[in-house]
Amino acid sequence: MAEILVTADELAKRLMAALAAEGVDEEGAAATTMALMHASRLGVDSHGARLIKHYCKVLRGGRVNAHAVVSCHRTGPATAMVDGDNGLGHLTSYRAVSVAIEIARESGVGAVGATRSSHFGAAGAYALAIAEAGMIGFATTNTDSIVGLFEGTEPFHGTNPLAFAAPVTGEKPWLLDMATSSIPLNRVLLYRSLGKELPDGVAADENGAPTRDPNVAQMLLPLGGEGFGFKGAGLAGVATLLSAVLTGTTLDPDFIPMVNTDNISTPRNMGHFFLAIDPARFAGANVFAAGMRAYLDSLRKVPAADGGKVMAPGDREWDVEAQRLRDGIPIDSETAAFLNFSH
Amino acid sequence: MAEILVTADELAKRLMAALAAEGVDEEGAAATTMALMHASRLGVDSHGARLIKHYCKVLRGGRVNAHAVVSCHRTGPATAMVDGDNGLGHLTSYRAVSVAIEIARESGVGAVGATRSSHFGAAGAYALAIAEAGMIGFATTNTDSIVGLFEGTEPFHGTNPLAFAAPVTGEKPWLLDMATSSIPLNRVLLYRSLGKELPDGVAADENGAPTRDPNVAQMLLPLGGEGFGFKGAGLAGVATLLSAVLTGTTLDPDFIPMVNTDNISTPRNMGHFFLAIDPARFAGANVFAAGMRAYLDSLRKVPAADGGKVMAPGDREWDVEAQRLRDGIPIDSETAAFLNFSH
Repeated sequence: MAEILVTADELAKRLMAALAAEGVDEEGAAATTMALMHASRLGVDSHGARLIKHYCKVLRGGRVNAHAVVSCHRTGPATAMVDGDNGLGHLTSYRAVSVAIEIARESGVGAVGATRSSHFGAAGAYALAIAEAGMIGFATTNTDSIVGLFEGTEPFHGTNPLAFAAPVTGEKPWLLDMATSSIPLNRVLLYRSLGKELPDGVAADENGAPTRDPNVAQMLLPLGGEGFGFKGAGLAGVATLLSAVLTGTTLDPDFIPMVNTDNISTPRNMGHFFLAIDPARFAGANVFAAGMRAYLDSLRKVPAADGGKVMAPGDREWDVEAQRLRDGIPIDSETAAFLNFSH
Repeated sequence: MAEILVTADELAKRLMAALAAEGVDEEGAAATTMALMHASRLGVDSHGARLIKHYCKVLRGGRVNAHAVVSCHRTGPATAMVDGDNGLGHLTSYRAVSVAIEIARESGVGAVGATRSSHFGAAGAYALAIAEAGMIGFATTNTDSIVGLFEGTEPFHGTNPLAFAAPVTGEKPWLLDMATSSIPLNRVLLYRSLGKELPDGVAADENGAPTRDPNVAQMLLPLGGEGFGFKGAGLAGVATLLSAVLTGTTLDPDFIPMVNTDNISTPRNMGHFFLAIDPARFAGANVFAAGMRAYLDSLRKVPAADGGKVMAPGDREWDVEAQRLRDGIPIDSETAAFLNFSH
């Protein structure tokens, strides 16, 4: 059974229904659906609709609280902490983002830490929500260990994403959503099934030795690879410092694994960090808008090596979104079956 | 004439004197000396004492205002703009850092943009100053074009550093100060003089084709190299968005070159961005301190591939500092002559 193509509206409806069936209320289901649809629309399929089955499983198991009551505690003129009550990470995160934007309107910058959260999907969804409110957005989380340290022999950090977004007048936002490893783990699994060699410097074997063989790859390497992986590892540390150390939540090596564990009943106490920066309090919204325009015009004028065009962060994703909204969103067979799509 | 070893005290004294000779007042000379000494002590020689000759030249040329009066404009409960009056970037930046810390104590987070600044040396100096005040620090700047975009054929971004620092109880701070290219330009020049091949994926020729030949390398490649350079290019963009677009200052391709130009009389209107985050407004200073301890203990327990030890960001630099404070700071012959060190 191959993947099928579905419309965004129909997919969103099925995701809402699947979550409602687990007892999640309207707001929680809408938040998770919005985050999953963000990823599925933009082509980040690892963080899209395919996660619904996992979320339903952990809701049923008790790891994630279907009836979470998210609470917010304002801790300063520019800061707040949001307690997710062990509910869906998307609900906690969109709530934290709203608070960050509200604070930034008041104070110029809003920084919000989240605790007792869970997997929040694609970090870019939250940075984007801030950009859509006219501000520079930043979102990060730490996750369970799968990426080595520079010259380390064991997984230590998670793929710890850093996501930044900024509004662009008359265009979709500038959007950078990047793991601090070169590739995600599912790329290794894909190459394994394709019998294809991995690129240099993206994965290592059980002794920490870099390998291109996906069958012996046991951990990912940080961005920068064999020569410069200390930079990717440092950036992964930034995600951990802000998401976990600052908020007092779980460190990467201490997480109950997201998958491949029998324990789906214990909350993971995941933390995140969100930042909203209002251009109005710096050179002003108009100067910022003109600057983004000049920056992107200048960037897009650079000739690409292959005769194509150079892209800004997000350009590829917005192209994918346009194409998918036109042609349909591809859903793998397992997820299609779970969501009762007929073939 | 080879390099010589000098004491930190003597070097700082000579740097102060050289700046005073250009008419820079006590505060400005002290700020520049502190930033240069940071780099020279920690082994970041590209941004250390060797820059003094350049700074004196541009002070004399008028590009940098020896008599700058830095001013600060508070724009919100969590934000401020600092106008450097085209003076030394270190003075502007340390002033901005003080303001960011003060604001963060008040509001939880302090974000400060700098305008009409100039080259500020090593970004890590400013992130570190924030960590020394007990907070998480972030500092960034954009610089003149020398790094290509992903698949681009011309230099676009500068080496645009991102620097983060965090306090660690009983230890020197955690300190990540990284260019968003894999290597700095002077590494290319060094390899040229050594007749050595560059690593893969760090530089490109005049057509944007990656090359390991330092003699044909015309631009640097973003962190992540041939396969994943879109990540490094995106991070360079983050530096530009925060430092230049947000503050309304000069974009990377529009800078009068730092060196290799006859124009040393026109100010470059460089921007920077600084952020201070007070752990007291999140899980609290004690929880943060315990978390940093647990994080670093856990990290340092990971066996290194070569049987050595895995390092946290800053560990190598603090080792170099200890060694240099014991044995002396190496100064190249040209700088030694400029500072009137005898041989």
